[in-house]
Amino acid sequence: MGMRFFSDNAAIVCPPVMEALQAANQVDTAYDGDALSRDLDRAFSALFETDVAVIWMSTGTSANALALSLFCPPYGGIFCHDEAHVMGDECGAVELQTHGARLMGCAAPGAKLTAAILAERANQIRPDVHRIQPHAVTITNATEYGLIYAPSDVAEIGDFCRERGLRLHMDGARFANAIVTADCAPADVTWRAGVDALSFGFTKNGAMNAEALILFDPALAQEARIRRKRAGHLLSKGRFIAAQLHAMLANDLWLANARGANAAARLLADAVPERLLHPVEANELFLRLSAREAATLRGQGFDFYDWGDGAARLVMSWNHDAAAVTPLANALRAL
Amino acid sequence: MGMRFFSDNAAIVCPPVMEALQAANQVDTAYDGDALSRDLDRAFSALFETDVAVIWMSTGTSANALALSLFCPPYGGIFCHDEAHVMGDECGAVELQTHGARLMGCAAPGAKLTAAILAERANQIRPDVHRIQPHAVTITNATEYGLIYAPSDVAEIGDFCRERGLRLHMDGARFANAIVTADCAPADVTWRAGVDALSFGFTKNGAMNAEALILFDPALAQEARIRRKRAGHLLSKGRFIAAQLHAMLANDLWLANARGANAAARLLADAVPERLLHPVEANELFLRLSAREAATLRGQGFDFYDWGDGAARLVMSWNHDAAAVTPLANALRAL
Amino acid sequence: MGMRFFSDNAAIVCPPVMEALQAANQVDTAYDGDALSRDLDRAFSALFETDVAVIWMSTGTSANALALSLFCPPYGGIFCHDEAHVMGDECGAVELQTHGARLMGCAAPGAKLTAAILAERANQIRPDVHRIQPHAVTITNATEYGLIYAPSDVAEIGDFCRERGLRLHMDGARFANAIVTADCAPADVTWRAGVDALSFGFTKNGAMNAEALILFDPALAQEARIRRKRAGHLLSKGRFIAAQLHAMLANDLWLANARGANAAARLLADAVPERLLHPVEANELFLRLSAREAATLRGQGFDFYDWGDGAARLVMSWNHDAAAVTPLANALRAL
Amino acid sequence: MGMRFFSDNAAIVCPPVMEALQAANQVDTAYDGDALSRDLDRAFSALFETDVAVIWMSTGTSANALALSLFCPPYGGIFCHDEAHVMGDECGAVELQTHGARLMGCAAPGAKLTAAILAERANQIRPDVHRIQPHAVTITNATEYGLIYAPSDVAEIGDFCRERGLRLHMDGARFANAIVTADCAPADVTWRAGVDALSFGFTKNGAMNAEALILFDPALAQEARIRRKRAGHLLSKGRFIAAQLHAMLANDLWLANARGANAAARLLADAVPERLLHPVEANELFLRLSAREAATLRGQGFDFYDWGDGAARLVMSWNHDAAAVTPLANALRAL
Repeated sequence: MGMRFFSDNAAIVCPPVMEALQAANQVDTAYDGDALSRDLDRAFSALFETDVAVIWMSTGTSANALALSLFCPPYGGIFCHDEAHVMGDECGAVELQTHGARLMGCAAPGAKLTAAILAERANQIRPDVHRIQPHAVTITNATEYGLIYAPSDVAEIGDFCRERGLRLHMDGARFANAIVTADCAPADVTWRAGVDALSFGFTKNGAMNAEALILFDPALAQEARIRRKRAGHLLSKGRFIAAQLHAMLANDLWLANARGANAAARLLADAVPERLLHPVEANELFLRLSAREAATLRGQGFDFYDWGDGAARLVMSWNHDAAAVTPLANALRAL
Repeated sequence: MGMRFFSDNAAIVCPPVMEALQAANQVDTAYDGDALSRDLDRAFSALFETDVAVIWMSTGTSANALALSLFCPPYGGIFCHDEAHVMGDECGAVELQTHGARLMGCAAPGAKLTAAILAERANQIRPDVHRIQPHAVTITNATEYGLIYAPSDVAEIGDFCRERGLRLHMDGARFANAIVTADCAPADVTWRAGVDALSFGFTKNGAMNAEALILFDPALAQEARIRRKRAGHLLSKGRFIAAQLHAMLANDLWLANARGANAAARLLADAVPERLLHPVEANELFLRLSAREAATLRGQGFDFYDWGDGAARLVMSWNHDAAAVTPLANALRAL
Repeated sequence: MGMRFFSDNAAIVCPPVMEALQAANQVDTAYDGDALSRDLDRAFSALFETDVAVIWMSTGTSANALALSLFCPPYGGIFCHDEAHVMGDECGAVELQTHGARLMGCAAPGAKLTAAILAERANQIRPDVHRIQPHAVTITNATEYGLIYAPSDVAEIGDFCRERGLRLHMDGARFANAIVTADCAPADVTWRAGVDALSFGFTKNGAMNAEALILFDPALAQEARIRRKRAGHLLSKGRFIAAQLHAMLANDLWLANARGANAAARLLADAVPERLLHPVEANELFLRLSAREAATLRGQGFDFYDWGDGAARLVMSWNHDAAAVTPLANALRAL
Repeated sequence: MGMRFFSDNAAIVCPPVMEALQAANQVDTAYDGDALSRDLDRAFSALFETDVAVIWMSTGTSANALALSLFCPPYGGIFCHDEAHVMGDECGAVELQTHGARLMGCAAPGAKLTAAILAERANQIRPDVHRIQPHAVTITNATEYGLIYAPSDVAEIGDFCRERGLRLHMDGARFANAIVTADCAPADVTWRAGVDALSFGFTKNGAMNAEALILFDPALAQEARIRRKRAGHLLSKGRFIAAQLHAMLANDLWLANARGANAAARLLADAVPERLLHPVEANELFLRLSAREAATLRGQGFDFYDWGDGAARLVMSWNHDAAAVTPLANALRAL
């Protein structure tokens, strides 16, 4: 089981989540009128130390697209990284939910944006009706290349957004992994730094199909709930999504799971530092790896994605720990 | 537990589905590349006695909207009943996924359309560029008022659709309940009668969050898969949806569950035939019930929805049986 | 020329408009930066006795759709008459520009809505996320059956809209004809009665291709200008549209033209009062007319549309006057 | 009048077009049922030496967006140049009409794409449901920097499109200018080279507000006409657009007008060859010009756009000839 490093999104579901599903299997109100769903605002408000509204979703793609549809009109634009998940891996979900807003890609090392990069891009856009005007920014934390945004990194972007009248969204598919490394309060890297909404991912971190769209402006909740229904994402037995989120928050399971994955990535990174294409700050590794080396590893039972020519991506899951990845570390060293 | 008759969509999940979720909790390929997902086409093709493509979905709303987006361009129209779920209960999901196609409502008793009604509606539409032209028809089986379409009912509509060049979709949120009553092969009331796609519902019938969009023209599968991803409905751990569908098909669990709900409805219908607003052909009852009578029943612990003034809707779930509803039957008789 | 009564939208262009086009044929700034375009706000603000923003458009369909896109989100609904132009004759333009908002048709005699009818329709919509919630109302003045809204008629609807938080749009394709009959200030039947935006039509009244979208809340102008560009409706030589509007306002040409058409309709109505299917309050007549009678008239060189079985629609244009329609009046009397 | 070089889109309308508007001012059928509109297919089929369907439009933006909506589904992508008009100057019109298809920008000198550049871009897109798949290519001829595509340039791209199953659109806002320089039959650089649709611009070349969307597959005409209506672009007095197109074709006026503008550009280019940032192949010049030099020219009454720092764009119009631009040539030489 520890031999597959394709993606944390294929991992097994962790036991407390499975138990929570069993426990939720009693009759309750449909949709999100059940007790578990109704308790989410409280639970996440405690975690974020402020009043938030929580919209449960089944996928990160739908959470991202819904959030951005709240912030950008159909005729607007959204700054993101050229290789952001919303840009390259969501098949136009943002375009669907925003009704045709444009994702405006920016280049940046490690898929990590900065206020300076955003400002340069924004300044190229003449403010007239012929050009699509930006309305929002979305950043991914941890980034698509496994880097994290420290609170100060986000705050710099948050300031830029406020100056320009843009809303700021964070794609937190691996938010837990980022928080473990940043070692900060969730609030520090979100609303305190200017983030308006967070797609807080749990599926990659041990849940079955549960994500929390966190709205730091609870006044947006009603529109978000309408848009969720319209997108076909209001499950009738929503209590089974809510149950997963509660299970992940309980006893800081979300942090414990991410800690495991990050530690496994750290162990591998330390084994072959000379191969690293990006700093390893979360649970992903991007390694220089020749086709022959990749074949050797695969011959030994390790599976992962090639990442262009001469490189590979390996992703650690919540159930990977030192023991699970030591064979891979050894195999990498032995190449 | 048997005292709540709000909707089958709030019922508990049946044990074989819960067990299937446990069994599916091992690492496999993400999205729909896993063994369970890849086996769905085979399983449903056997059930429908023809080659079908199966797109798993988490909600009926998303299945309906996706199906109709395959059949109707943004500038087209879709005939449906005035009180169809797509019209009144899905918050514009069809409009979102079709990019603005228009639902064209028709009146008909019991929410059951006929070819004659459709033809009359169609004939009102002058075939020029000023009027939205129809491209599809969607019917609900069992209907929103608990009636069923017999194979010949559907075939008549199927013929109409073929003549006019329209595609035919069936919303089968309660398809199992309809089949139990029609006592026919699933094929008879679908593709053999001209149906192009079926939203085959399982969530109301004992699953947690699993629906199967059945495409009787498998050539549509690729576009459907793209649209599912774009709608944010491609779950990364899709095997947990596929597992539910397999569990429901195994040993005809889907029929057994529906049989129970229908029998419970039958028992209640027979108890108070004089109160019935519609024939009871599936698992829903629409009863004449004064506000005072409704209050009396609620005082006894029975819960259900009012349905306008002086009427009530009661829905039986898969886990309702004769024993479960006898107290309600007695209470109704005693009013 | 006076023998065709199909529609005022096919009529010739009146001489002052043709002259204005010639006069505008000099170099100026592109789009709407020219002197004539920039002067529109002033000209219409004077006419409406309040500050308005004017968006010139080339078609009434685009003006209606743009206005409603300002007032209704993609997930919202818009009340209109079942036979409103936006519903039956614009091929989904509203759905395109609003990104899928739903037109919610209401029945009413003469295509003339009332606050009571609207309230009844609105009260049927349960305020939850499953149902599309209304955001706007659109009425047509003069209506599709040639009736007019008096200031008090509109005010009643305006009050209803304010109470319910709805925005009110008026399709004024034949606004001039309505004003002539109402004999009131344009302000009285628009903003003073609660109208938020007016599609003020000039093409049917003697222009070539010029309509004015009047925004009584000028703060909406910037979004409207963006949406006009995005809809491909920002002409590069916009001065030729603006010139038409100025020509129509000059010397109250718009009223003079409408007065002629209304008088012609009046003359015909008085000739055959027993044939009228609707009161004649503007420039349209709906007559009881058998197929044989229609054929007789056509044999005499009069052309018009059948309006279902046993009825006909005749529309008077700005260049019709008593002399022009007397032969038709005689022919009708002689039937 | 010859002193303004901002854009050909602000130029005056040429006399034969004005005369044609006068001549068209008689009653005829509304929309595009009039004799002039019905004669367009014939006229352009003759010009293109093949059967084409012609959709008149009032703006190039709407023609481009409509064409691309025929070729690309909402979930698809369209390759274009990074600085294509559809990308940077049409405010998301393509996104609106395609319902969210993505413009996929490519870099290339002089805004002129090649098959090799397109192939490289296409090869980066993994063919799975996570990535938006390309469905069409749009090129601009003459390009946004005044270069032209020779028939062989287009044919190379046409071959690429056929291989990959992509449809090819040409934005011909300055098609006349390109044809004059290429000195080829219109067919050679369009359908014979694989172009599926052409936005054939006339407004910049002397018309008032008339463009012709040429469909080389006439089977697409019906859908195009529906989409035009839905976009609010079906003018009721369409004969006035058709009349302009006929006037431009008569006596090859379109070529004569373009020849004048190109010659003016040529004269200026020859005057200051050392300042040219791009080869001058049509009617646009991009010149190195310091802020001080620009100010000097403006002080002498010449107006034009700055083009970033140290550069300027000058566009010749149909009514510019050698005499009209000689003063500017002298002023440039004298800098």
